[in-house]
Amino acid sequence: MTAKNQPISGNDLARFSGPNTFMRLPSAGRLQGLDVAVVGVPVDIGTSWRSGTRFGPKQIRAESAMIRPYNMATGAAPFDSLQVADIGDLAINTFSLKDTIRIISESYDAILNAGALPMAMGGDHSITLPILRSIARRHGPVALVHVDAHADVNDEMFGERETHGTVFRRAYEEGLINPEKTYQIGIRGTGYAATDFKEAAGWGFQQFPAHDLWGRDLSQMAAEIRRDIGDRPVYVTFDIDGLDPAYAPGTGTPEIGGLTTPQALQLIRALRGAPIVGCDLVEVSPPYDPSGNTALTGANILYELLCILPGVEYR
Amino acid sequence: MTAKNQPISGNDLARFSGPNTFMRLPSAGRLQGLDVAVVGVPVDIGTSWRSGTRFGPKQIRAESAMIRPYNMATGAAPFDSLQVADIGDLAINTFSLKDTIRIISESYDAILNAGALPMAMGGDHSITLPILRSIARRHGPVALVHVDAHADVNDEMFGERETHGTVFRRAYEEGLINPEKTYQIGIRGTGYAATDFKEAAGWGFQQFPAHDLWGRDLSQMAAEIRRDIGDRPVYVTFDIDGLDPAYAPGTGTPEIGGLTTPQALQLIRALRGAPIVGCDLVEVSPPYDPSGNTALTGANILYELLCILPGVEYR
Amino acid sequence: MTAKNQPISGNDLARFSGPNTFMRLPSAGRLQGLDVAVVGVPVDIGTSWRSGTRFGPKQIRAESAMIRPYNMATGAAPFDSLQVADIGDLAINTFSLKDTIRIISESYDAILNAGALPMAMGGDHSITLPILRSIARRHGPVALVHVDAHADVNDEMFGERETHGTVFRRAYEEGLINPEKTYQIGIRGTGYAATDFKEAAGWGFQQFPAHDLWGRDLSQMAAEIRRDIGDRPVYVTFDIDGLDPAYAPGTGTPEIGGLTTPQALQLIRALRGAPIVGCDLVEVSPPYDPSGNTALTGANILYELLCILPGVEYR
Amino acid sequence: MTAKNQPISGNDLARFSGPNTFMRLPSAGRLQGLDVAVVGVPVDIGTSWRSGTRFGPKQIRAESAMIRPYNMATGAAPFDSLQVADIGDLAINTFSLKDTIRIISESYDAILNAGALPMAMGGDHSITLPILRSIARRHGPVALVHVDAHADVNDEMFGERETHGTVFRRAYEEGLINPEKTYQIGIRGTGYAATDFKEAAGWGFQQFPAHDLWGRDLSQMAAEIRRDIGDRPVYVTFDIDGLDPAYAPGTGTPEIGGLTTPQALQLIRALRGAPIVGCDLVEVSPPYDPSGNTALTGANILYELLCILPGVEYR
Amino acid sequence: MTAKNQPISGNDLARFSGPNTFMRLPSAGRLQGLDVAVVGVPVDIGTSWRSGTRFGPKQIRAESAMIRPYNMATGAAPFDSLQVADIGDLAINTFSLKDTIRIISESYDAILNAGALPMAMGGDHSITLPILRSIARRHGPVALVHVDAHADVNDEMFGERETHGTVFRRAYEEGLINPEKTYQIGIRGTGYAATDFKEAAGWGFQQFPAHDLWGRDLSQMAAEIRRDIGDRPVYVTFDIDGLDPAYAPGTGTPEIGGLTTPQALQLIRALRGAPIVGCDLVEVSPPYDPSGNTALTGANILYELLCILPGVEYR
Amino acid sequence: MTAKNQPISGNDLARFSGPNTFMRLPSAGRLQGLDVAVVGVPVDIGTSWRSGTRFGPKQIRAESAMIRPYNMATGAAPFDSLQVADIGDLAINTFSLKDTIRIISESYDAILNAGALPMAMGGDHSITLPILRSIARRHGPVALVHVDAHADVNDEMFGERETHGTVFRRAYEEGLINPEKTYQIGIRGTGYAATDFKEAAGWGFQQFPAHDLWGRDLSQMAAEIRRDIGDRPVYVTFDIDGLDPAYAPGTGTPEIGGLTTPQALQLIRALRGAPIVGCDLVEVSPPYDPSGNTALTGANILYELLCILPGVEYR
Repeated sequence: MTAKNQPISGNDLARFSGPNTFMRLPSAGRLQGLDVAVVGVPVDIGTSWRSGTRFGPKQIRAESAMIRPYNMATGAAPFDSLQVADIGDLAINTFSLKDTIRIISESYDAILNAGALPMAMGGDHSITLPILRSIARRHGPVALVHVDAHADVNDEMFGERETHGTVFRRAYEEGLINPEKTYQIGIRGTGYAATDFKEAAGWGFQQFPAHDLWGRDLSQMAAEIRRDIGDRPVYVTFDIDGLDPAYAPGTGTPEIGGLTTPQALQLIRALRGAPIVGCDLVEVSPPYDPSGNTALTGANILYELLCILPGVEYR
Repeated sequence: MTAKNQPISGNDLARFSGPNTFMRLPSAGRLQGLDVAVVGVPVDIGTSWRSGTRFGPKQIRAESAMIRPYNMATGAAPFDSLQVADIGDLAINTFSLKDTIRIISESYDAILNAGALPMAMGGDHSITLPILRSIARRHGPVALVHVDAHADVNDEMFGERETHGTVFRRAYEEGLINPEKTYQIGIRGTGYAATDFKEAAGWGFQQFPAHDLWGRDLSQMAAEIRRDIGDRPVYVTFDIDGLDPAYAPGTGTPEIGGLTTPQALQLIRALRGAPIVGCDLVEVSPPYDPSGNTALTGANILYELLCILPGVEYR
Repeated sequence: MTAKNQPISGNDLARFSGPNTFMRLPSAGRLQGLDVAVVGVPVDIGTSWRSGTRFGPKQIRAESAMIRPYNMATGAAPFDSLQVADIGDLAINTFSLKDTIRIISESYDAILNAGALPMAMGGDHSITLPILRSIARRHGPVALVHVDAHADVNDEMFGERETHGTVFRRAYEEGLINPEKTYQIGIRGTGYAATDFKEAAGWGFQQFPAHDLWGRDLSQMAAEIRRDIGDRPVYVTFDIDGLDPAYAPGTGTPEIGGLTTPQALQLIRALRGAPIVGCDLVEVSPPYDPSGNTALTGANILYELLCILPGVEYR
Repeated sequence: MTAKNQPISGNDLARFSGPNTFMRLPSAGRLQGLDVAVVGVPVDIGTSWRSGTRFGPKQIRAESAMIRPYNMATGAAPFDSLQVADIGDLAINTFSLKDTIRIISESYDAILNAGALPMAMGGDHSITLPILRSIARRHGPVALVHVDAHADVNDEMFGERETHGTVFRRAYEEGLINPEKTYQIGIRGTGYAATDFKEAAGWGFQQFPAHDLWGRDLSQMAAEIRRDIGDRPVYVTFDIDGLDPAYAPGTGTPEIGGLTTPQALQLIRALRGAPIVGCDLVEVSPPYDPSGNTALTGANILYELLCILPGVEYR
Repeated sequence: MTAKNQPISGNDLARFSGPNTFMRLPSAGRLQGLDVAVVGVPVDIGTSWRSGTRFGPKQIRAESAMIRPYNMATGAAPFDSLQVADIGDLAINTFSLKDTIRIISESYDAILNAGALPMAMGGDHSITLPILRSIARRHGPVALVHVDAHADVNDEMFGERETHGTVFRRAYEEGLINPEKTYQIGIRGTGYAATDFKEAAGWGFQQFPAHDLWGRDLSQMAAEIRRDIGDRPVYVTFDIDGLDPAYAPGTGTPEIGGLTTPQALQLIRALRGAPIVGCDLVEVSPPYDPSGNTALTGANILYELLCILPGVEYR
Repeated sequence: MTAKNQPISGNDLARFSGPNTFMRLPSAGRLQGLDVAVVGVPVDIGTSWRSGTRFGPKQIRAESAMIRPYNMATGAAPFDSLQVADIGDLAINTFSLKDTIRIISESYDAILNAGALPMAMGGDHSITLPILRSIARRHGPVALVHVDAHADVNDEMFGERETHGTVFRRAYEEGLINPEKTYQIGIRGTGYAATDFKEAAGWGFQQFPAHDLWGRDLSQMAAEIRRDIGDRPVYVTFDIDGLDPAYAPGTGTPEIGGLTTPQALQLIRALRGAPIVGCDLVEVSPPYDPSGNTALTGANILYELLCILPGVEYR
């Protein structure tokens, strides 16, 4: 049995030093032997308002240097249980969204074929459609935990059917997800008609609008979602704009009245035990938060997701 | 019956394009036929600490491009019911607060005479005194919903009686407002003496200090205020510093321990049905929040106020 | 004879007020009667490094409010001679660079057919290829004054032939420009091989690398270019990164060692009299200069270009 | 009886004017006669991640100009009861942490010998160890209220035993604090092992992890702490990163999921009556919050601490 | 003979520590005995575009901590020759420009009556009119060295005759300055008509437009000005926007194509020996340059002016 | 013969992707076979004013992704001639400057023993003393090209003899450099006495104050320096504050009136052929330039230094 990769300790090398990988993990040139592949998907050409998420993976990695390996709140010790590495960024085509979507899907096929669980650092939310296509090819239609300010169920935007606002309509139409086991959490804001959300509810999507969650501890709600998922494979997609802009100012399409980071942590921690087959954190836009704190938040959310992956030991 | 003005849809023209009007509504050169006139009042010479609110209307308009016409949480469809337009900025005199106050009042007389309900984008809070003068000329003393960190009831500042800190003492003295139906919500911080707040309470002002509201759902409180107002004409003035600086960092005189945006939305939504005759959102100072999120919050608060105006249809 | 459009005077309406049009000119819904159409082309999906130029037109317009109508240095009074208006932004498709390029070209055909000279506010440099296609359809191959840090003569980028780095190779191949009358000014930096610049020189392009211009007054060089152009129709494309990052920090692909703004003004002013048929200013990226000064510089460059258009009176 | 020092009133001198002392109090060259000495300790060479706290005292003072003398929420009038002055900054050696720690301790001996209660504006948290040494020399082992994201009980960092992460292990080992009366509030985040927190719990430290406090009113918890302290002398050390980064973005080692400012105010106000012998507010890093709001929050926390010092009159 | 005030040495107290006075000089409560009184005039209500200069004195003082007492380039040792102190800020009325102008003039009378040479840190340029009134009362009409992007000779702005744009027309009309000995250096940009500059030239003003100075060493020009001044009392007013925005981005009304800092230093140093009776540095607006470098530049310009005051010894 | 390391091409992987190494070169775990070792030295505890240079290496690497392998101006193709790799950061002790200085020197011994030429990304200037110690151990006293605003020849600062301000006095005293072949270029600003610079001149240092260089092409001066060096081993240390703050705002101790980037390029390019044995670029402080342009400038300076190393082929 080989020793597992460990993040470089802040006591061995100053935190502002070292490789710009997720949590200063080793970077892996090959996928074999990995339980979890952390991957950057630096896309912002699928966004409709502020751009900048192309620098998301770079800043998330930079800020993740603050995170230590052990989860003080939950006792999770993910790096003692799983072989995790940063496999770098996908070689997307920044001049063509269509081609980029193709590349992401093909790259994910390779990751999944190698047996690694993919954990993506976005990039805008358009990356999740090709990810789900690949996930569905391997696992069939999956349950979906979707934290977001937006339902992302538009049909078209400027005639395009694959953008950051159409992902989950496409995923539904293409049978990539199990609609009855799709949970949209934190959705809010304004739309074009009442049908914006209701149509998806009609497909079976379970929706948890932000205004129903304000001031609540989300542990119980998440525990119920976890039970409802059962042993179905589940994908978790976390759009950082699910959080309130007070907690995540550096994002492309902020909406007021969102979740707090404590709620995000309650939500994720209560999903422990769910058979997660992949996850992503999207929509961190560095130019809109030079302090780096939005990226730090994104890095922590990814870490917390890592802590609830199947096989993680708690001490 | 003429078709109502509609914001330009984000599916017709990219959100970062188009006119810099509130929500990309048409700009109106004339007032006739308008139910609601959105107007900029770009003043910062009435402020005592950080300036910059002169750029408030411009940035609020820029960020309002994110807002879609339909309110997903409440079902309000304001643009199907009311004829709304952006009438541009008042031609204030940026070198004289006194003259500016005169100009604002005269301009408001014209808006009110045309039968339009005025919705102002400030500017510092000094703009509300001349607005109330005009409002009172038309409607008599009004009820007042006043969200703010500060009571703004100073008598003088450097010998001046009309600044952003003296508005509601003047309004009281001049009989512009009904003191028993004046609700000050979110006030907090430090003062010069206990009398700073208590004197106004003695006039009849109903005060809701922030520390009594922390962690509470404000729906019920607001519903009680709404009932207490009855069918009196009411003016709503929302100082963005009523919110906590975490939610609205870009403002001139921030005070810690304020309201959250969920509380602001609860408050406004529960006022639905009140006979509002005008409203404003003041004290957004763009230089102190380059991300634009404070202005985005201000734009959303104005939108939510629009959604509860008399005559708005819910679907 | 109708009166010409005039910018709103800073003595009539405070500069921070009024419409967010170029120099607070009237916005025109129709093209008829315009001598010059100022147009926004809010694209950033053609860029290879920092994005953000989609907000370029909005910020250039905002900062242009500082500019008064008369050119104190040269005596140009452009608004007394030409009918100028801001025609708003092109309705590009922000999810497809290919489709956007098509839309720009079609929109430009309409502008040119109406007889207006187009003056574009970018947007990244990819917008200039469809512009030149339209220009060439009307005027045949044009002379080209091209200020830039980069030659933009790549063949492909990630397999794409139409990006912000391939514009002038395509323009050459398609016969849109007269290669012997193409002047590349300010090019510098690093490349992949000596051929990066030399191949274009072989086509006839006249290249003026930045390091040959350091510390020089560019008036004479520009006068020689102006003579060399003769009476050929000429298009001017000014990439703000032609300037040194000290003068224009807010741009997508900055290169050190560039031109100064005095040099830019010397260059433009000495081109007076050239038969300009269109021009653009590209690559202002607002998120990388929150002060707005890069956009202010871009606005002034556009103004100076306006001042040398055919027909402008000097007083 | 001499008149007490009063902050310059915002009605006498514009808030952006005047000396850059805490709350624009007089600066004192000598300690005699002071009840409270506000002192800057501008250190950032003890930090492990982002630096910048060396400018903390300067920015806290600048932002404190907003605070008025009377506490509207609690009725405290600290300047009517206590003689307070700003005694400037300690003359630390910015090139040697070891020497700086020596200087701080010696300087504190002088303050305490003069009978003044020291209130420090940090600086990173490494300053609290020499402060506690001096405090213990005078008062014996003290009770400790410690608000922080981190327990700061590392043994060594890069072989150093005195850094911002080892303070409270050293304080425990050296007998500077009463471990059973040490309250760590708001600790959270990630660590190296479960023992990171538990070892300190074994020493007697009472720990209140942030995740147990989310959404709670902290008044009752703090009242219990206050009762538990009894009449023991107590020192209060408030690391601004105890707050959530939404409330205090400008700090060196932010951790998500922290306290809110209302909770901080509840906590401090409920400690009223405790025999406080000194306090500090540390880890404000100005470069990471150019708006100044984090420093404003720090200034208010210091003010609230001032309001609960022994001898303060309430009106 | 008393020892002269000296700035606190950076080797005695870390530069980020100590009082926020100009160069960390002693602050003086009384004027008697001062040769030079450095004074803050924190005004921004006289500006027409970006505000924020109210914080200019505070930030100039903060950045001036970097400056050491001896001028390495010229050998000036101003603090060995002159008694210099920071006398704090004038108690302006931030709600009334008219009243502020009155206060400035009265305060200056006191300074001049005490025999101190006043050196002002602005504030917008409107402060120079009342300063000149006071100067003229004492010295009669003075020669004027005026570095600026703008001539500031408007007649009215929004009907007001005293703003930051009308200063030197008023000074001319009121006979405060000797028009033939008035030197406007660096003026440029756009205007309303050719007469904008020419009228002032008709009064006798000697104008040195920026475009005539580009790339030149200004030593000779300044030496000629110095000779032309002769032994007349001269006032120097330096608007930081005389510099190019590359060198001074943080200002209220930037204009491209300005002076460089080397040119500013050449200019000032060559004025040595002129009988200067007062000077100011205006229009530093901190919110538009969070790095502080514009304020640092302003502080250095003030220092260089200090070095050429009558009586300064060179070593 | 093995193929040389090449930077990842921007046409193979989008520039915002890939490893955060210098120019996206391979990172090397071992030194053997390297001609040039690029190394980060993330220190800011040796600085006297603004900190933040600890993040210098990280941001320089991030911005270096823009640089392509071939030098268009000079024809240098460094990666075809030399085996270059990024060897990561030195494991400094961020809590002890003394210990850090020891670590740097030991680390450099290893690099030099392996036969690699070290190219450092700082970090503040204190790193150059231990570097020179190691260089001198291998090469004997070296010639020194020192670009800087400051002479860095203080004797002590707060009693410390090894800080960023004492480097070259120590180097002189310890015989690490050849004083007659030490060239200080760009020095300027203020000091404590005339001796600040003159003493070093007395040791033999050749000083080129900035004010003698303003507006000059530095090629000739640098060619003379190059000739004067002859075949002596020479070390080049480039403090980014040698540049004017307009060109390099993000630095710890900026001084106005500095060099331009064209001058820096002229200087470096004219040194071609000198027997360089090592070089560094220090004092980039990311928090003071969020745009990244100062780091971009630093990265380009390092690249230009790379281009003139012995053995580089020109094409």
